[in-house]
Parts: sequence; C-alpha cells; structure tokens
Amino acid sequence: MEHGGRTFASDNCAGVHPDVLAAIAAANVGHAPSYGDDPVTGEADRLFRRHFGDAAQAFIVFNGTGANVVGLQSMLRPFECVLTADSAHINVDECGAPERFLGCKVVGVPAPDGKLTPGLLDAAATGVGDQHRVQPRVVSVSQATELGTCYSPDELAAIAEWAHGRGMLLHLDGARLANAAVALGCSLGDLGAPAGVDVLAFGATKNGAMGAEAVVVLRPGGGVDLPFIRKQAMQLASKMRFVAAQFVALLTDDLWHRNAAHANAMATRLAAGVAGLPGVEIVHPVEANAVFATLPDGVTGALQTDYPFYVWDEGTGVVRWMASFDLTEEDVDAFVRRLAELTGG
Amino acid sequence: MEHGGRTFASDNCAGVHPDVLAAIAAANVGHAPSYGDDPVTGEADRLFRRHFGDAAQAFIVFNGTGANVVGLQSMLRPFECVLTADSAHINVDECGAPERFLGCKVVGVPAPDGKLTPGLLDAAATGVGDQHRVQPRVVSVSQATELGTCYSPDELAAIAEWAHGRGMLLHLDGARLANAAVALGCSLGDLGAPAGVDVLAFGATKNGAMGAEAVVVLRPGGGVDLPFIRKQAMQLASKMRFVAAQFVALLTDDLWHRNAAHANAMATRLAAGVAGLPGVEIVHPVEANAVFATLPDGVTGALQTDYPFYVWDEGTGVVRWMASFDLTEEDVDAFVRRLAELTGG
Amino acid sequence: MEHGGRTFASDNCAGVHPDVLAAIAAANVGHAPSYGDDPVTGEADRLFRRHFGDAAQAFIVFNGTGANVVGLQSMLRPFECVLTADSAHINVDECGAPERFLGCKVVGVPAPDGKLTPGLLDAAATGVGDQHRVQPRVVSVSQATELGTCYSPDELAAIAEWAHGRGMLLHLDGARLANAAVALGCSLGDLGAPAGVDVLAFGATKNGAMGAEAVVVLRPGGGVDLPFIRKQAMQLASKMRFVAAQFVALLTDDLWHRNAAHANAMATRLAAGVAGLPGVEIVHPVEANAVFATLPDGVTGALQTDYPFYVWDEGTGVVRWMASFDLTEEDVDAFVRRLAELTGG
Amino acid sequence: MEHGGRTFASDNCAGVHPDVLAAIAAANVGHAPSYGDDPVTGEADRLFRRHFGDAAQAFIVFNGTGANVVGLQSMLRPFECVLTADSAHINVDECGAPERFLGCKVVGVPAPDGKLTPGLLDAAATGVGDQHRVQPRVVSVSQATELGTCYSPDELAAIAEWAHGRGMLLHLDGARLANAAVALGCSLGDLGAPAGVDVLAFGATKNGAMGAEAVVVLRPGGGVDLPFIRKQAMQLASKMRFVAAQFVALLTDDLWHRNAAHANAMATRLAAGVAGLPGVEIVHPVEANAVFATLPDGVTGALQTDYPFYVWDEGTGVVRWMASFDLTEEDVDAFVRRLAELTGG
Repeated sequence: MEHGGRTFASDNCAGVHPDVLAAIAAANVGHAPSYGDDPVTGEADRLFRRHFGDAAQAFIVFNGTGANVVGLQSMLRPFECVLTADSAHINVDECGAPERFLGCKVVGVPAPDGKLTPGLLDAAATGVGDQHRVQPRVVSVSQATELGTCYSPDELAAIAEWAHGRGMLLHLDGARLANAAVALGCSLGDLGAPAGVDVLAFGATKNGAMGAEAVVVLRPGGGVDLPFIRKQAMQLASKMRFVAAQFVALLTDDLWHRNAAHANAMATRLAAGVAGLPGVEIVHPVEANAVFATLPDGVTGALQTDYPFYVWDEGTGVVRWMASFDLTEEDVDAFVRRLAELTGG
Repeated sequence: MEHGGRTFASDNCAGVHPDVLAAIAAANVGHAPSYGDDPVTGEADRLFRRHFGDAAQAFIVFNGTGANVVGLQSMLRPFECVLTADSAHINVDECGAPERFLGCKVVGVPAPDGKLTPGLLDAAATGVGDQHRVQPRVVSVSQATELGTCYSPDELAAIAEWAHGRGMLLHLDGARLANAAVALGCSLGDLGAPAGVDVLAFGATKNGAMGAEAVVVLRPGGGVDLPFIRKQAMQLASKMRFVAAQFVALLTDDLWHRNAAHANAMATRLAAGVAGLPGVEIVHPVEANAVFATLPDGVTGALQTDYPFYVWDEGTGVVRWMASFDLTEEDVDAFVRRLAELTGG
Repeated sequence: MEHGGRTFASDNCAGVHPDVLAAIAAANVGHAPSYGDDPVTGEADRLFRRHFGDAAQAFIVFNGTGANVVGLQSMLRPFECVLTADSAHINVDECGAPERFLGCKVVGVPAPDGKLTPGLLDAAATGVGDQHRVQPRVVSVSQATELGTCYSPDELAAIAEWAHGRGMLLHLDGARLANAAVALGCSLGDLGAPAGVDVLAFGATKNGAMGAEAVVVLRPGGGVDLPFIRKQAMQLASKMRFVAAQFVALLTDDLWHRNAAHANAMATRLAAGVAGLPGVEIVHPVEANAVFATLPDGVTGALQTDYPFYVWDEGTGVVRWMASFDLTEEDVDAFVRRLAELTGG
Repeated sequence: MEHGGRTFASDNCAGVHPDVLAAIAAANVGHAPSYGDDPVTGEADRLFRRHFGDAAQAFIVFNGTGANVVGLQSMLRPFECVLTADSAHINVDECGAPERFLGCKVVGVPAPDGKLTPGLLDAAATGVGDQHRVQPRVVSVSQATELGTCYSPDELAAIAEWAHGRGMLLHLDGARLANAAVALGCSLGDLGAPAGVDVLAFGATKNGAMGAEAVVVLRPGGGVDLPFIRKQAMQLASKMRFVAAQFVALLTDDLWHRNAAHANAMATRLAAGVAGLPGVEIVHPVEANAVFATLPDGVTGALQTDYPFYVWDEGTGVVRWMASFDLTEEDVDAFVRRLAELTGG
C-alpha cells in the first residue's frame, strides 16, 4: 500500500508514540504497589494537577466508554438523565453502556455540527419536578465533538452557566480533548474548571497512548466516591503504573500538544487538498482532526479499496476521515491524489 | 530494601516479563484495524484455540473483574444466581461489580480451602422453580482458588456433572489458571472443556503480562453475544493489538508455563522455609503460588515493615504471601531469614 | 362543580366501575392461596385465553409501567434496544423505569400522530451487527397511542412483518387496548396474535378497574420466565385474587367493551362539540378516547380553573382531554358550553 | 374442610377486613386526581404522621418487595451494601429484586432467631474504605422477623447506635410491623424514629388490607427523591385513593391493632396447644403471629393434606404456621386436634 500502513479510518488505528512506549518500559522496574499506589501513578497525578488545576482529581481507567460512564456515575442518580447531542459517543457508540451501568436515560438532543447550545437545551430539559419524567441532571458535551467541531471556552461557559443555574452539572467527553485544545489555542486546563466543566474524560489513547483514559474530577468533593465507582465499573487496573506511565509521557514536554497539533494539521491539509475536487463537499467545519465529506456517486467504494474509512451516515453517504498523530504529509498527499484520480479532479 | 523491590504482597505487584514487553513493541508497526480486527489479535485467537481447543472462542478484556463479569453475563439472566465459594473474588473483591452489571445475586457458599463440592452445592441450590427465589444457573469456581488451592480435573468434572445435570453451567475464574495448570501437571486446555467448564476467565496479568485477561467461551454457541456484552461492559480495547500481543507472548514457547512454574516453586520454597519456624502455621495446602499462614503474636506488623503483604482475615490474623513470576530464590530466602529472626526460629 | 366531580384530566381520575367493585367483594371469602394459585386467578386466566387465544399466557401485575417493563424484559437482553414512538409512554412517562430495570436503551423514533410505520423503522434500525451499537430487538407500539390514534390490524401486521423479518419482536402497550378495539371495531384478540403481536400489556385500570394490568404473552414459549421476571420486578401481588377479580369483571359480559365504547363516544361527542368553536383546532384524529387541541390565547388557563386537564406540550400549547368510562353526556356538554363561553363561540 | 377455608399457610392467604373493603368502596365517588393528589391519600398521610411522627413522610406502594426496594434505594448508592439477617425477606424471598434494582450487594449475616445484633454486625462490616469491597451503608432488620421474633425498642436502638456511629443507616422491613408492635406492647411509632430507624416499610396487606404497603421515611430530608424512585420502581399507583383508603381504615380506630392482636393471640393459642404433643417442638420464640416447629417423622405430609402450610427448611424439616387476623379459636383448636391425632398426643 502506498500509504505505508497508515490510514484515515480512525485515530485509534494508529500505534503508540515511541516516547509512550519508552515510558512504559521505564516503569518496568521491580515490584510496585498495585491499583495506583505506586510512584508512577503519583507522578501522573501531579501532572494532572499541573494541567487541570490543584483541585483536580484524576482517576485512570482503561477506555473512553469507561471514562465516560465512571465520570457520569459520580454525578447521577438513576432517575436522573443526561442531555447530550444526538451524535454523542455516549448516545450512539457505546452499546448502551451508560444506560446499562448508570440505569439512567440518555437523552439525545438533535444538534447541528454536534454542538449543544443553551437554546437547544432549553427545549430538551422538560419535565423538571414531574415524578413521571426522568430529571435532567447532567449536560454532556464532546470536545472535540464526534463531528470534528469544537466548543470555544465561552461556548462551554455558556452551557455551564445554563446547567449550574438549574442545579445541573456539566460533563465533558474529552476523548479528543488534546485536539480541541490545540484547535482552540488554549491549554487543556482552560477547557476544564475555568469553562465550568465539573467532570471530564481525558483521552490519551487517540493522542498517542497505547490505551489510557482518565476521569478528571474538577468540582470540589466530586471525587470521593470515584475509587469505588471505578472498581465496580471494572475499570481499575491492577498494574496501574503501566497505564499511568502513558499519561506521564504525554503530559511531559508537551507531547500531547505536539501529537494533537500534528494530527490537526494533517486534517487541515487533507481538507484543503480535497476541497476543490469535483463533487467533493466538506460538510462540517474542520476544526480538530476529523474531516467529514460527501463524495460523488461511486467514489466511496473505490476509495475504500485503498484506504479503509467509515461511511458515517448510510442515509446521506457522508464519510469520515480521521487524522492520526503519526500521519505524514506524504500520506495525506497520496490520499488526496487518489481521490483526485477517482473524481477526475 | 534487601528484597530488591520484590515483595510478597500480590502477584500483581510484579512487573512485565521482558518477552511480553518485546511483543508489545513488535506490534507497534504502522496502523492496524482497531477493536480486534488486526493480525496480532488474529494470532492470539489462533493460540487460544491451540491451547483451549478448536471450538474455543476468546474475547480479550482489560482486567479480571471484567473477564468474570463478561463471561458470567453470557450465561445468566437477571433472575438467576451464581453459586460460588464465599471466598471467591466475584463474591468479595469486586466491589459488587457482578451484582451491579449482571443484576444477579451472587450466593457465597461456605467452602473450606476455597473449594466447592457437589455436596456443598446440594445444600446451596435451593428454591429451584420457586418464583420468589433467584434461580441457580451458574456455578463459579476459582482455579487456583483465592486460598491457593486447586481443583483437580476430576473435581472440576464432578462439579460440571452436578451443574449440567441440573441445567446449570460451569464458570471458572482463572485469574491464576496458569499456576493451577502447572500445579496439577496438566495443560491449560485440560482445565477447560474436557473438565466440563463452559466459560472461563484466563488471566495473563499475574502471569507476567502488563494487563490482559480473556473470556474463553468453550460451550458451543456461547460466544455469539460476547462482542456486544464486552462492549457494553466497557471492556473493549480500541488498540486491541497491544493487549493481544501480551497473550501471543505468553502462549508461545510456553512462557506462561515457565512463569507459573517459577512462581509456584517460589511459593513452595517459601512454605518449606517457614514451616518449621516457632508459631508459624501454614493454614491451607500450598498448591499454586500462594501461602497462607498464622504467625506468633506481634510478628505480623514487624514483618510488614520490611515486606508489604496482606492480612487476609482480620479476625483470625491469617496472612497471605503471594509468589510472583519474577521472585528469586534469594528473595525468598531473605524473607524466610527475616521471619526466622522475628520468631526466634 | 357543575361537572359533578368528573373531569377530563385523565381516564385514571375516574373511579371503579360498580361491577368491578362487586367482583372484588365477591372474592373476599375465606382464605385462598396467595400469588395467583387461587380460583379467581384461574378464572381470569380462562378469560384471558378466551379473549386472546388458547396459547395466550397472562401475568397479572400492578400498573402499566410494570406491565410494560415485565413484558419487555421477557423479550430483551441488555445490549438490545427497543424502538418506539418518541411520544410513547415507555419513552417519556415512566421516569426511566425501562432503562433502569432492563438496562436497555429505549430509542424514541419521531412519529407523527404517535404511530410507527415500517418506513420510520427502517430509518431507525441502524447499527445491526455492529458491536458498538445497541441491537434493535423489539418494536413497541402503543394501542391506542398516547395521541389518541389507533393502529389498524393491517398496520400492526405490517409492523410485525417488518420486525419478524429482521429477527425482532413486536410489543404492544395496551394501556388503552379496550378503547382501540372498540374504535377499530374488532375484538381484543384481533389486536394480538393475529396482528403479529408477540407480547402485550393489557390495561384494565383506565377501563374501569381499580388497579389491574396484565402482561399477555402470545408468542409460544414466551412466558416461561415471566413468573421470575414479574417477582423480581416487584409486580407480584400476594392477595392476587383481588386483582384478578377485576379482570374477571371486565372480561365477562363485555363490560370492557361497554366501558370503552362509552368513553370513546364521549370523546367523539366532545370533539364534535368543540370543533366549530373559534380558534379551537383538533390536532390529532380522534379515534379512541382522547382529544388533543389547540386553543385561542388565554383560554387554557381559564378553562383549567373549572376543569383540570393537562397541557400536553408546553411549547405548542396543545392540550389533552381524556374521556373516561363514567362521563355523562351532560358532563361533556357542560364542558363544551364552558369552552364556547371562553372562546366566544 | 373443617377449617372453613382458613389455613395457616401464610397471613397473605387471608382476605380483606370488611372495614377495609368498606373504605375502598367509600372512596369510589366521582373523579379524583391520580397519583396521590387526592383527599383520601391526604387523609392517609395525616394518619401516617399521627402514628409515626410529624416528620414522617409516607409513600404508598403496591407490595412488600416494592416497599423494601424503594426505601433502600433512598439510602444507597450502588457500590454500597446492605447488611441483613441471612433469613431476611430481602435476602431470600424477593427473587433478587434488591440486587437487580439497587445494583447493590445484599450481605446475609447468619443470625439466630432471625435477629441481628451489634456483635454480629461487627463481624460482618468488613472492608470499610477498601475500594475492592462493597461499602456497608445500611443495616436492614425485619420486625417481626421472618422467624416470628421481635426486636425490642432497646435492641433496635442499639443497632441504630451501632449503625449511625459508623455513618450508616437503619432500615426496617415492617411487613408485620403491626404484629411486632402488639407483641412488644408499644405503638407503631415507638418502633420508628424513637428507636433510631431511618426508613421503614409498613405492611398493611398481612394486617387485613387488600394490597397496600408504604415506605415511611423518618430521617429528615430522606424523602426528597422518593417520588421519582417510587415511579421508576414501578410502584406508583394511578388510582392511588383506593390503596390509600386501606391505610385510612387500618390506621383509624386502631383496626391495625385489633387485627394484629388477634393474629398474635391465635399464634400463641396454637403454640400452647401443640407444645405438649409428642415429638412436637417449637423452635423459635413465638412472639408475633408465626409458629415454627419440628414434627415427628411422617406427620408433616399428613397434616398438609388437611392444612396447607410451608416446610420452612427442607434440610431440618422445620415447618411454619402463620396466624392471620381472621382465624377463629375454633380454627386453631381444630388444627391442634388434628395434629394431636397425627402425633398420638
């Protein structure tokens, strides 16, 4: 394959950044207390506080679904519900894990470009105080969204104000938080407590880790039950140091930023490259590392032969291309060339 | 510390075997399909079938709790119950994850040395057909048990016969299956389908992996729902190849056997070394890699100062020492010497 | 109040039909086996079979939410989902009981007039076979719908064919099944197995009972787990005979039909009476015993002063008037006169 | 049958007290708001406060399992556990409803005569603060117990002190609270807040009602979520007035006391009558309305031919006889005569 094994199917098709692998190997010395009472996890905790503020409490888990569910569990009772964009991962792509584990209803709110607004939430937050209705308790936003768009800190703050003013809380699914921070030109921490976020899931896997996510609790006192919730949610690693080491690598020397910046740049390059091709239309703003497009008839299948990627919406034919931290400019350019051939562009 | 950082607290305090780490690094080439559709996972699947039989279907998960819960979910409806030894991990050490996720009652059966028998099960399996009672559906045994003992293949087969004769199924928690197989002088597969086991959890983490467990479904057709169950249980890894690689390393060239044999030998050495010390009593047969003992008054705390380990039962003062794959004879001998000093032996 | 205590708020504001009360009193003789092993429940079972077919198995429960959840539980595993109209009771008005007890996602499908169609279902049944998505397993329709409309037997059969052709099942929420049968001019049984329904909830409470609902299982073998599911769902009455007696009364001498026919007739009378009033618009077909309307500005509050009823949709101002089995023509006419006064009609 | 249809199988085999039936009929006037906003429920609420104190909040539900689960839900998060006697109804006879709905582990503590003590609880409340263990949060006692014994107010207070001193709460399953209060010579209220109980289930069904139980919340603020919990637990009656009327009848003019006193007296008479018969041994103190006994070989089956009753423990052959509010002295004496015949006494 001319793309050297690198594709645009998902940023979780990429491998592990060498520095992350090195950090894992470096953690492999002698015995260490299990379940997080080890020095490497201690170092990760310090780094989480450095990035997200001294009050932040981080709880490392295995995967994004686990991070979302564990974080949401710390905010919800079963008769309460989560309001989220209809395209959100927790609503669509987690095989009902939130409903199953939380026992809560997840209410999908139709949201253009994957982004909630106070106005959309006003229409969705019905039945408050009515014993027949699930009670709105948490707003969950994705940053970046499933559609590759980002909330500005001000947009987040407006949603947080909306939520907090109603006694509700703000959850953020940050499976691609690094990409969003880079896109917005801000720090990771800027997208947390200062923006009114109460609990967030911070994803390292798509940012160059092997498999490492964290629940970061920002609201004071919000973490007290987390150790039990994490364990009961089957998300507590015994040899924790090897998961923690991945965060240590990414949160040191701005590796998280370099990886995300490169991925975003590759998405931008790809979008720019295909933008003028006949019949190719970019359908969402390209703000992070995803490109959504419609293609001329017959092109999708042919392109997939060379480059695996997902048709995002079978109804409309919209396709998704994700840029990983390890793509090269050559990978992108070759992809663009191939699409140009197919479209006659 | 004279024990060079290696302790007897738990076999999950050990690090990663170098061959496992090498396998992970070797898997880090280019992009690969996520969620298990990659060649490394394919190779792991082949190895699982080689060890557990052609009909075996393996589903890789993150940790032991996840492996147990996912496997049990494939066998249970919510009004059914699991009969297990009262000391079983699923009954005691999983923070209620089985009850939470399965919605099922876990019935702990008092079991000497941690082992169930048909006789014990007869007494526990009450209320069959009574709509007011949870219905016994699964017997879950631990191999090796939490108390370091093992079921012989014949003992397993007797339990399986008991269960199958009543329309029930047999689950095996094999977090330390490798240690049991070595102790019993049999293959991994001998402890599966031939012994009547329907579904087992195979643990690699304590056998030298970084963090890798698998649900191995042995009963025909039993795996059809597993992909969905695993995902909903938050146990599906996106970059699966790096978890699968750990199994590839352990299941190739008998690394699993070498690691377990060494750990068991170290436990035997430890038990033999302390057996004659004044006031030290071994309280369960030492069959795998665990040693349970009672110590003279005042000794436990002093010994823990040098060697972290768990008091297993606060009431009786029984302590547990676990032997890992990476302990050395010197580690063991130094520990025995220290205990001899403290007991005046 | 000129309406003699009878209102249009809900058909569960009505009392108990005298024949039902008499049947309860008649059952109060001596002791009887509890939990349904009594002669009155036996008689109810015979009547259920007479109405719904010899293969029907009825399980009496306490309320409509219980009937829906218990019935759905017999058809679902937790990673599966229910497709239902977005206005359905299970989606909106059960405080998340289905998600909580089933652990399943309930997918609300936007449905005009509250009715699903194969076309609407085609668009909603996505992700089949994809382990990241909940798997469509049950279509649940309401008969009559929450919006007072009815599915014809042919419409039901088309949905059943759609579902069965995909390995799915059809559930029917018949909290107002009697009203629908009368509206459609068919028997209760015609809306069950012959229309392809697998499991239905049959509501007696709104049909003149005190509090009695039943899960009626129509698919062969579908009832085997129901006793356990019902008990675990907290829906098993100890003194069952007094709930069963209510069904005996309604299912004997067509009391169910007389009550429903009268309620429907009152709704029709009401709709006809208000149809010509200035600014009053009926917004859904009046097929059963519900009338949905929009009113001129300022009228709703004034009318509610005399007659409690619900504003169905705060956004659009649509109001709902329900006709009960015990309304009189005078009740309806007085209501129409009052609305005429308020609208200047 | 010489016993006129009245048996000793269970106090839920009895019918409805005529005054209860009359109260139901009296409530059947015109329309009333549903779901508890009606005057009859208002009257029941006043009576609950009169009996249980001004701070008590009562929430009427359908059955005992519902009352227990709803009450416990108001006190528990899923990673917490309930400590209860191993013979408790919530542990044995609710088909796993607590585990299923709460997601919590129910820990059965071996308890002679069905009664917990601080000493027994000390041994059971392990793992506090250990993230691998479910966290003890609620002690649940049954009053009267499943074995027919009662806790004195002082015994309750000692358990409450034990629980509250550890940040835990005290739940009381009062399916037979009336029988216990009579046995102890105290009021219903004496067994609530003054004894340190935080939440109790008050059973009317076995006390002469048709089907009516209530969650009575005694701890300040403890009822705030109850309306939602009750609805989500499928325990909210639409025509609530007819359930509330049953409480009105029982809590007025001491009907609850008369019914329970009579039932207790019949149990005492029965126990006294059989005590001297050859080979008949009463195995638990007869304090409320239950008698547990062992019988000579061969007698149980013969006696059951005439009088249905339960063998409580298949292993030991212990049988249970329950006395209902509507038994007559003749019923009891005939039963004793029959047993005397069978035992040759």
